[in-house]
Amino acid sequence: MSIAKTPKPPYYAVIFTNLQSDDITGYSEMAKRMAELAQQQPGYLGVESARDSLGITVSYWRDLESIRQWKNHAEHLQAQALGKTRWYSNYTTRIALVEKEYSR
Amino acid sequence: MSIAKTPKPPYYAVIFTNLQSDDITGYSEMAKRMAELAQQQPGYLGVESARDSLGITVSYWRDLESIRQWKNHAEHLQAQALGKTRWYSNYTTRIALVEKEYSR
Repeated sequence: MSIAKTPKPPYYAVIFTNLQSDDITGYSEMAKRMAELAQQQPGYLGVESARDSLGITVSYWRDLESIRQWKNHAEHLQAQALGKTRWYSNYTTRIALVEKEYSR
Repeated sequence: MSIAKTPKPPYYAVIFTNLQSDDITGYSEMAKRMAELAQQQPGYLGVESARDSLGITVSYWRDLESIRQWKNHAEHLQAQALGKTRWYSNYTTRIALVEKEYSR
């Protein structure tokens, strides 16, 4: 995992923070598949992910419409349903407009 | 580390993504001190952090002014300088306006 190379702002970030449940059967295969699928979507700009006691995945998107389409993608809907019922005990998703970015 | 309980949007997120260098001498003490200090600042709303190969820290703030003040806090400026010169090989900071939030 590396730092995403995103374009000059503005663009959008989806900040997905989660705590896993005790049953993560099938999780890592699905996470891999979703990462592959996400990067094929229109408007996808990149992703960053880390996990220790907490999991944080930040994906970057051109606009709200590309986020909406990805949220409603058939395979992704199945993954979200499994996330809700099986893999995550808690999660929060935040949709945020990136206004400024600085790097080294 | 748990999921931050943030107020109803809008509010701001600072997404700090980083790769550590080989020399993290003093890093964990400073990270702890900065976490304590941040939560005493006006406009602070919470923080979420995770690290594996990548480190991601997302802090939440009431407005751009509270972010600006924290960025310019004397002790935080010293920490940022050490981060640049010693602890991080690469990093990106993104300032983003959280427009929507949903949880379970």
